[in-house]
Amino acid sequence: MSIQKDVSIGVDLGGTKILTALINQNGDIIGRAEMETKPMEGETAVFRRILHSIKKVLIETSIQKARLRGIGVASAGIIDSNEKTVLEAGNLGWKNVPIGKLLEDHLSIPVALSNDANAAAVGEWLWGSGKGHNHLIYITVSTGVGSGIISNGKLVNGVDDSAGEFGHISIDYNGQRCSCGNRGCLENLISGTAIANAAKYRLSQGEESHYLRGINQTKITAKEVGEAALAGDSFSREILKEAGFFLGVGVTNLIHLFNPEVIVFGGSVMNVSELILPQVMQTVRERGIKSLTKTIKMEKSNLGGDAGVMGAAGLLLLQDPRVKISV
Amino acid sequence: MSIQKDVSIGVDLGGTKILTALINQNGDIIGRAEMETKPMEGETAVFRRILHSIKKVLIETSIQKARLRGIGVASAGIIDSNEKTVLEAGNLGWKNVPIGKLLEDHLSIPVALSNDANAAAVGEWLWGSGKGHNHLIYITVSTGVGSGIISNGKLVNGVDDSAGEFGHISIDYNGQRCSCGNRGCLENLISGTAIANAAKYRLSQGEESHYLRGINQTKITAKEVGEAALAGDSFSREILKEAGFFLGVGVTNLIHLFNPEVIVFGGSVMNVSELILPQVMQTVRERGIKSLTKTIKMEKSNLGGDAGVMGAAGLLLLQDPRVKISV
Repeated sequence: MSIQKDVSIGVDLGGTKILTALINQNGDIIGRAEMETKPMEGETAVFRRILHSIKKVLIETSIQKARLRGIGVASAGIIDSNEKTVLEAGNLGWKNVPIGKLLEDHLSIPVALSNDANAAAVGEWLWGSGKGHNHLIYITVSTGVGSGIISNGKLVNGVDDSAGEFGHISIDYNGQRCSCGNRGCLENLISGTAIANAAKYRLSQGEESHYLRGINQTKITAKEVGEAALAGDSFSREILKEAGFFLGVGVTNLIHLFNPEVIVFGGSVMNVSELILPQVMQTVRERGIKSLTKTIKMEKSNLGGDAGVMGAAGLLLLQDPRVKISV
Repeated sequence: MSIQKDVSIGVDLGGTKILTALINQNGDIIGRAEMETKPMEGETAVFRRILHSIKKVLIETSIQKARLRGIGVASAGIIDSNEKTVLEAGNLGWKNVPIGKLLEDHLSIPVALSNDANAAAVGEWLWGSGKGHNHLIYITVSTGVGSGIISNGKLVNGVDDSAGEFGHISIDYNGQRCSCGNRGCLENLISGTAIANAAKYRLSQGEESHYLRGINQTKITAKEVGEAALAGDSFSREILKEAGFFLGVGVTNLIHLFNPEVIVFGGSVMNVSELILPQVMQTVRERGIKSLTKTIKMEKSNLGGDAGVMGAAGLLLLQDPRVKISV
């Protein structure tokens, strides 16, 4: 009798940490490991740490390797999921690293690779805020802005696996030049970096914030703005409200193009979602085509920081035609 | 021995005319019929004319009904393709007309219904400018602006079959209010209506056009602007160039979200595509993310006015899992 392959491992490979988790088909995390990435030590060192983290969760959960359906890896950057290769990842300093193939060869087990926003979309779709909805968009607002898009239960990944660049949608054709070459990109209006820049700029123009004035202005980040806003700082609340408005304009564009059932919001900026999402919803209601917006659900990610690692593990389920996914 | 089902009929149902064509699996049009829609005579009259046009092409081509795989209908408006119902179509004055079901019941043959932009995308994908490309976007610029999006060889249709509202993407969050409720929509910047309005506005502001000054200003349409531009009118060329710029900003957004291989441009405004597409391409090259734009193909529809009717017939091929589509 063959052993049932009923668990998967997800690896969320970030510039700072490697988060690894062993997950069953219900999306329960059976075991997890977290270690520093230390990308400056080179690709081989990072590869060894990924292997180590995989062995660690197997040992700690006492689960035999034979029960593993496979390993899914989520990475930032530009990914070729067919070649299981990280084409370019700034946070790792990687170019053309076939990390998926290396793992597959070394462990003799199926490996899937996807970008982190796509993986998080899969996680939220299978087990999170988007469960039960085959038309779903996951938006992450953090240092940068990205998205993962599921249409009819399939990832919209594009011909080069580079779809979902929501951060580089222009909503202001004559706006500020973005590093990508475009103008008026959402990333320059709503990212954590943009929120911090807006606060610094307004303070430099003489606006007042009782909460932020004690902080060295060069050290203000979106985290400080969020904390000040939660503490009642009207200056900071105004900045988050403006970010919510711009995000709402971008979300309206997504709704008009994809006609989704649900939009899930994640990323560190969504730690203060209660100060941003109401403005997003108001903007969508004011600007969207009624037949498309009247039933739209907009929700904060309920998997939070685990969306990527869970979705990475979920990639294996998607690829297996024998698995009936009960979303 | 059963008769091979090797042909399909497409019906392109517009507010002015009903275009019907019988098509084989290679996309050859074997026979066609065109008649006026006359929607003011009511739904039943239009339904009878569709039936009549179907019988006409069968008789004229001497093809037995038994060889028909089915009938595909493309209609403007909001469509429920599962229920085979036109939910709302302003050009027909229809609300909740189950035209696909009516045809299916009457003819005892499979019927598919789709909106016209989605059908045109399928046509261009199977047999037109997008042949061989499984990641394709079809954009139509006419009185209005719409799109049909194919990702991984599947239509991105959304939960209510209402995806692809490219005309209502905002590229100017503070721009002019659109009838849809949004601001800065592409439809207000690049449609035939917008082109005519831009010409009228500029003339009213005292700008000079030698070619257009003989025409009653209230009667200027995009057709006149295009003809003047083709004849060398710099005023009209400037207006088309500006439309090309705005279209380029919108297309850059689409490329960043969908990472397509090819974008196909159709609709009456593309009759002067040589005066618009170069500006679209320049804008995409200037503003797009290089890794996404370096291999993008942008082409004028080579099916032209037949894209919708051919794609409608193609809907039947897509739905039949026995048919291997050799794109």
